[in-house]
Amino acid sequence: MTIQHPVRPAVPTSRYGSRLAALGALATEHGIDAVVVGVGADLRYLIGHAATPLERLTTLIVSGDAQPVLVVPNIEVELARSSPAVAGGFVHIHSWHEGEDAYGIVPRLVQRRRARPRIAISEGMAARHVLPIRDAVGDVELILATPLTRELRMQKDADELALLRLAAGAADRALERCIRSGLAERSEIEVSRHVRALMIEEGHDETMFAIVASGPNSASPHHLPSDRQITAGDAVVIDIGGSLAGYRSDTTRTVWVAGATGVEPDSGFLAAYDAVLRANVAGVAAVAPGTTCEAVDAATRRVIVDAGLGDAFIHRTGHGIGMDGHEEPYIIAGNHLELRLGMTFSIEPGVYLPQMYGVRIEDIVVCGSRGAELLNRTAKDKVLRIL
Amino acid sequence: MTIQHPVRPAVPTSRYGSRLAALGALATEHGIDAVVVGVGADLRYLIGHAATPLERLTTLIVSGDAQPVLVVPNIEVELARSSPAVAGGFVHIHSWHEGEDAYGIVPRLVQRRRARPRIAISEGMAARHVLPIRDAVGDVELILATPLTRELRMQKDADELALLRLAAGAADRALERCIRSGLAERSEIEVSRHVRALMIEEGHDETMFAIVASGPNSASPHHLPSDRQITAGDAVVIDIGGSLAGYRSDTTRTVWVAGATGVEPDSGFLAAYDAVLRANVAGVAAVAPGTTCEAVDAATRRVIVDAGLGDAFIHRTGHGIGMDGHEEPYIIAGNHLELRLGMTFSIEPGVYLPQMYGVRIEDIVVCGSRGAELLNRTAKDKVLRIL
Repeated sequence: MTIQHPVRPAVPTSRYGSRLAALGALATEHGIDAVVVGVGADLRYLIGHAATPLERLTTLIVSGDAQPVLVVPNIEVELARSSPAVAGGFVHIHSWHEGEDAYGIVPRLVQRRRARPRIAISEGMAARHVLPIRDAVGDVELILATPLTRELRMQKDADELALLRLAAGAADRALERCIRSGLAERSEIEVSRHVRALMIEEGHDETMFAIVASGPNSASPHHLPSDRQITAGDAVVIDIGGSLAGYRSDTTRTVWVAGATGVEPDSGFLAAYDAVLRANVAGVAAVAPGTTCEAVDAATRRVIVDAGLGDAFIHRTGHGIGMDGHEEPYIIAGNHLELRLGMTFSIEPGVYLPQMYGVRIEDIVVCGSRGAELLNRTAKDKVLRIL
Repeated sequence: MTIQHPVRPAVPTSRYGSRLAALGALATEHGIDAVVVGVGADLRYLIGHAATPLERLTTLIVSGDAQPVLVVPNIEVELARSSPAVAGGFVHIHSWHEGEDAYGIVPRLVQRRRARPRIAISEGMAARHVLPIRDAVGDVELILATPLTRELRMQKDADELALLRLAAGAADRALERCIRSGLAERSEIEVSRHVRALMIEEGHDETMFAIVASGPNSASPHHLPSDRQITAGDAVVIDIGGSLAGYRSDTTRTVWVAGATGVEPDSGFLAAYDAVLRANVAGVAAVAPGTTCEAVDAATRRVIVDAGLGDAFIHRTGHGIGMDGHEEPYIIAGNHLELRLGMTFSIEPGVYLPQMYGVRIEDIVVCGSRGAELLNRTAKDKVLRIL
């Protein structure tokens, strides 16, 4: 089957220049001599360069008033040149050759404002690069760049929101098609492979995960698909996430496998589903600019606590989503951060009853001026009985 | 289409105990107080736990004579319990609850032999965990665990080799099917999606990358698939890698798109292909126990230099492969490491002529007592003309 995918909005080149300038200003404000950004979501956000994280060093150095420099292995120079921020003249390339000490390049690109420079490292950079960079710079104060990068990345602009909508739509269609095809007499692994294939067909570039947790396995929130055969009388939690033009999808639905003989769920499952559904709806309804993350968590949690299932809701309400699958803001008790327009995150209450079943219902929402915009639209309003 | 996949050999549970004991012995030998292993290949190798790397801390602590401890978020306790090393009693679980300071747990699990403990961190752990662990332990000497983990992981045992053979076979079949289906009048992205789907059909659990570089793009070794339409008269480099039961595949072939009208390659392309092919064969032939990695690189490179194309072979000959796509041993000038039985790595010479074309031919080999065993078997002996 060939599916026509909608046109993806392109982020204008000038925006990478604005993002880099904003990062530089934040670094100055925080008294940071250099920001060192490894391959991953931060790098893709800042310059549009989507390399694969490898043992060869690729890193963006933003320091002082110098033009940002992208250090890349020679075999990725062409790839780097095609990234919009390099093509647009906002970033200079410094390439290194196979066998050269790439880490030795980093200190030369740091404009020191103090004898012991303060360097902020992007949170996704692997230890294999972090420790050699530390050794190359010498006496250095290494801190995480997260307080800077989250300020830039938490509030999505219109193009980013359009891409997140496309990703959510692709996930919705894949999940619906998978569920409609029936789950009984298939293994979790088979269903997981199937839904991954559907995610690609529906427009994702990559699948990141596809949790299929059936029967008692559904009580384990991050269960990995096993060879367990799904049968009538199972609850099944399906939680999928992929990437589209660098932006992530993430949605979860819980269904009941009635099978050909029409096995009905027991009252305990129905009560759990009802509580989780109402909690999801309450969480979505609580979203508004100025509301704290912990208030959204509390609004969600209260419904499940009131239903007598509070001890079974063992995780936070949600996590931010954008170019990372999990990012700020985290919707969790203790997070006093106030929601702002364009923040995007999951509302995903869950109830887990060991040896029995679990229920989780997850939607991605955008904080808008009139409350939450729901990006996921698949049915959730009653327990779906399927084959 | 449903394909019957061969049964995957299971690594016996006792082997995880042996691996953990060997790591502990190496740590003592290197004067290391604790080895801190994050989510990724090292963790999967040591205890069989295949979690997803996330912002929530999951880490294995191997310290002194204490039983190794796996620190996990509460929502992944069930997943952790099902990992073979935990189920087999070799590892103890310490779980933490949402909102708890997980990093505060780490110092309590380090058996200090000195006031300033020396802690080895697995190379794949992200900065978001490395720096908070450093801060939690306080005055600490942080080093990479790679010198320890590579000693354990470089020489594959029989079960690992069997899994690498399965992964290579699945990649071979996917690549063959993709090429046979014809490439002309398709975009690089379409072909990349297609071959990823075939990789899953043929037995991979996940696809890691699928480079499709056509025409002048083939001169960029790590080109990312674009919307360029492939046409008759293009060279196309296809380089794919996936994961099967945690073990990686990686193979590259270069083909010529003759199209329906039968466009023939020019003499320059034929000469480049011939040189790369003979270099690949020479590299494979150089593999033997006791031969250094750099000698294998030199044997490969000499052929291309002698063909007058040395400047166009801009990367090393290869990289190790196992539970990571790139790992030790690296087949590169300056690496005096001697090959040992069971080491697995790529032989992948390439020639890149900017604005024109590139050629790369990559096979995974095992160092055996009688030389290299080739894991990839797709045809490479002459330029394949395809539609």
